[in-house]
Amino acid sequence: MTTTLAPLTEPWSPAEFEARLRAVGEGRYHDRHTFNIRMHQGDLTQAEVRRWITNRFHYQRHIPVKDALITAKLDSPRLRRMWLRRIEDHDGRSEGEGGIERWLRLGEAAGLDRRTLLSGEAVLPGVRLAVEGYVNFCRLRSPLEAVAASLTELSAPDLMRTRIEAFERHYRWIAPEGLAYFRTRVDQGRRDSGEALELVRQWARTRTDQEKAVAALSFKCDVLWSLLDAVQHADGQGQDGSRESM
Amino acid sequence: MTTTLAPLTEPWSPAEFEARLRAVGEGRYHDRHTFNIRMHQGDLTQAEVRRWITNRFHYQRHIPVKDALITAKLDSPRLRRMWLRRIEDHDGRSEGEGGIERWLRLGEAAGLDRRTLLSGEAVLPGVRLAVEGYVNFCRLRSPLEAVAASLTELSAPDLMRTRIEAFERHYRWIAPEGLAYFRTRVDQGRRDSGEALELVRQWARTRTDQEKAVAALSFKCDVLWSLLDAVQHADGQGQDGSRESM
Repeated sequence: MTTTLAPLTEPWSPAEFEARLRAVGEGRYHDRHTFNIRMHQGDLTQAEVRRWITNRFHYQRHIPVKDALITAKLDSPRLRRMWLRRIEDHDGRSEGEGGIERWLRLGEAAGLDRRTLLSGEAVLPGVRLAVEGYVNFCRLRSPLEAVAASLTELSAPDLMRTRIEAFERHYRWIAPEGLAYFRTRVDQGRRDSGEALELVRQWARTRTDQEKAVAALSFKCDVLWSLLDAVQHADGQGQDGSRESM
Repeated sequence: MTTTLAPLTEPWSPAEFEARLRAVGEGRYHDRHTFNIRMHQGDLTQAEVRRWITNRFHYQRHIPVKDALITAKLDSPRLRRMWLRRIEDHDGRSEGEGGIERWLRLGEAAGLDRRTLLSGEAVLPGVRLAVEGYVNFCRLRSPLEAVAASLTELSAPDLMRTRIEAFERHYRWIAPEGLAYFRTRVDQGRRDSGEALELVRQWARTRTDQEKAVAALSFKCDVLWSLLDAVQHADGQGQDGSRESM
């Protein structure tokens, strides 16, 4: 009698692999975080909205840095061009354009000073650690893991749409032009996540690599979750509390 | 009696600092390497020209990688845009464009197969080490040092002009279209070195930093010199010799 022994861990089928990646987003994405739920229900005070914008800006301004680190891991002009476009999306093709500039304008629409945002002085310790952790993950891990971590973009377009509605309804003190960042990210996020998912599917051929990709996406969800934890729990704690009373 | 004690090492004046940087290029740039002198005098065999093109391609294809690592060290959209343009110069804005493609066409004009060039299989050990050393320098050192290392571009435009003349005169078996890479680099090199020199002058305010910048440029000259050493001394040594007999 001959039996064919399957390897101990066979790769998941492409469909199952994708389903497992999507399940991470459904279970662990920061749309489920209390602070995000409160934001979208209109329950945040003006000080809380400003605190979130200020701290999330620290994340936003590091996106091109992590994307440059990913670019350096890619071994063909075609793949690097794909990632360069992401850097351009955030840095702009020229001064006054791009996602970082749009985020600064969101801050201004919410009554925050551009220079204070750029100074980074109001950024919370937990937010600094979360961003540092994400940048170093992209610096030190494999191209597969660094790209898989970007797959939170699979869930981002839905979040952006909900957020635009929530801000238009609940936070009318922020001028609608301030929401341009969220509007731009709906299409950019859809395109970026489609490209990244295709790369991750091509690159992760073994079960080990598939599991590494799932773990990378899970780590990235922790980064975003941890950022909101810090923003949520900052109330009345020293530095941040005193800034809010200004 | 009061005396004003100067710090042990005062910064060089901007003019002296620039002169010291230029002196490194004048003394240590690879235009003085025997292999380059022989190339420009028309003394290389066809096999030697091909060996140089093949091995230098390994350097060329890593330029966008080191530039992406430098981009990740820059903290403003303005500076990153400056460096992104360098990556685009080599990778192209779309397929079939850019410096890497132009180098592949130089190889084809010299009778080399594009697939062999892309495979990297004929790259000499010393060339691999030189390129790895340069990429890691840009990965691990300060932005000042990584940018200062790029200042070999100060000497590159002159070298490119001499090279175009030398190839047109001595290596007529290479079709003139093959020299497009060298032609493009005259202007790109002038612009790149001007920008980089300005950054290095702004950033290196202490004597210690000025000396680090000079040392970085000196290291980069060693990289280029070492690459030519490997190409020069490969004659008849095992792998490479056997490939040349093909």
